[in-house]
Amino acid sequence: MQRIHIGLVGVGKIVRDQHLPALAESPDFHLLATADPNARYDSVPGYAALGDMLEAHPELEAVAICTPTHLRYSQARIALEQGKSVLLEKPPGATLSEVEDLVDLAESQGGTLFAAWHSRFAPAVAQAREWLEEKRIRRVEIDWREDVRVWHPGQAWIWEPAGMGVFDPGINALSIATEILPRAFFLRDARLWVPSNCQAPIAAALTFSDTEGTPVVADFDFRQPSPPIWNIHVDTEAGRLSLLQGGCRLEIDGRCLLDAEEREYPGLYARFAELVREGRSEVDLAPLRHVADASLAARREPTESFIE
Amino acid sequence: MQRIHIGLVGVGKIVRDQHLPALAESPDFHLLATADPNARYDSVPGYAALGDMLEAHPELEAVAICTPTHLRYSQARIALEQGKSVLLEKPPGATLSEVEDLVDLAESQGGTLFAAWHSRFAPAVAQAREWLEEKRIRRVEIDWREDVRVWHPGQAWIWEPAGMGVFDPGINALSIATEILPRAFFLRDARLWVPSNCQAPIAAALTFSDTEGTPVVADFDFRQPSPPIWNIHVDTEAGRLSLLQGGCRLEIDGRCLLDAEEREYPGLYARFAELVREGRSEVDLAPLRHVADASLAARREPTESFIE
Repeated sequence: MQRIHIGLVGVGKIVRDQHLPALAESPDFHLLATADPNARYDSVPGYAALGDMLEAHPELEAVAICTPTHLRYSQARIALEQGKSVLLEKPPGATLSEVEDLVDLAESQGGTLFAAWHSRFAPAVAQAREWLEEKRIRRVEIDWREDVRVWHPGQAWIWEPAGMGVFDPGINALSIATEILPRAFFLRDARLWVPSNCQAPIAAALTFSDTEGTPVVADFDFRQPSPPIWNIHVDTEAGRLSLLQGGCRLEIDGRCLLDAEEREYPGLYARFAELVREGRSEVDLAPLRHVADASLAARREPTESFIE
Repeated sequence: MQRIHIGLVGVGKIVRDQHLPALAESPDFHLLATADPNARYDSVPGYAALGDMLEAHPELEAVAICTPTHLRYSQARIALEQGKSVLLEKPPGATLSEVEDLVDLAESQGGTLFAAWHSRFAPAVAQAREWLEEKRIRRVEIDWREDVRVWHPGQAWIWEPAGMGVFDPGINALSIATEILPRAFFLRDARLWVPSNCQAPIAAALTFSDTEGTPVVADFDFRQPSPPIWNIHVDTEAGRLSLLQGGCRLEIDGRCLLDAEEREYPGLYARFAELVREGRSEVDLAPLRHVADASLAARREPTESFIE
């Protein structure tokens, strides 16, 4: 099959760590160019801006947008208006309203828009979803705790309002939970702890319930000493499912069903290729909506200053 | 035409001030009963709970849900599941996620769900919308300022997280702006001032821009001495449209086109009757989504304690 010509917008840490290796081994994509005013990838032409890249390479069929969140909307609009397929890194935008507008635009253009939630492509997520499909669920516990100094060194932006603080990793947990649980769930109570010198929370305690009243509790914390805890436990009438290590390991009642290497981005690009070839979009706003809901309805408590 | 049998859920201030008078003069509705554990309306039977009211009056076709926001989701679900048409007072829920679920439920049941934004039924709103339809817009200014002590006396809930503070009136302005402006707009910057003894903001400064880059600025403030200011100004190539007094008065370049008495709730119930008879839903989440976006992306600044 012909490879899809793709350009990368934004050449930052996530692109070097994940997108470039995934594209290098992808049977579906051929990386043509990058656009970033401050960085480039030596093997392909680099342009300062998306517009320049699109002009120089009319053969581009798709772009992956990995710039800081507040820049994504206008870049995605330009690309969609020029008929390109668009992948948005997570979260898909700085606000829900702008992503809704991109969805409308993609629909009216007949183009592909893909809101990429990379954690959904962790190896054990699909099997966890299947196992839970028909089970009666009693309680869900989401534990997502890591040391911000280890996992986000020097990322001062994470403490700004749009940086989302502990929701930056927490939204990954929510993207998995909304994928594997058979019913939608809704926030009932939220507490956020915000360092007195920061705008975004360092910890969050969220209580949701689903349409049947099943409790879903989430504990997000940036103050966890290493090793990190990225686990979701689901108590059902047929036993306790544990999705561990960010979705790499699946256990039922402590018995291991799957333990595999993390390969999220190859899976994510395989899905994007499928969507591009079928001319379909996939934009699930549920994870970002839960974070917005928590921001809207949470009780905020000041906590001690964060000094890296 | 046969009147629609309706029940009211929640008998608080907004019901006494607005819903009861509007229903009393409505040619479309016949009020059968109310449900509220603490209050009732003497002219019709009162029940403690929605379930009791529905059981006692199977002939009920519709309910208007006017309870505190956090109770609405489960009540709306019960009513929709029993095939009733549902009107939700503004805002339609405590979170976006729960309202999305109600939309899905109404769709799957083929029932009517109406998210009622009462300010959209102010007398001059429809004419403002028509006038703006084809105009080139340069700038939008939303001024929505009132004295919280005058307009919300004793409403301690308004300072709780779900009370939304100055967004309680501000969402009315956003419901008008999203109705009259021809293009969607998105938050670019938000500052919230939160009294040090409160959870919800006393003032908000929001900057949006629309798909063409047109600035839309909003100034919400609870510290405005009387009289209140509830105005929207739209600068266009064809002159300045001013929608004043909460939508009662329309001016173009200072010339008055319409100045009418406030009759929002009769208009709102006329629309609900239309939707019920046609079996359609109308749920526009844009106003609540903008408030959630602002909560997600705002810079919060502490300000002096609020003591009523």
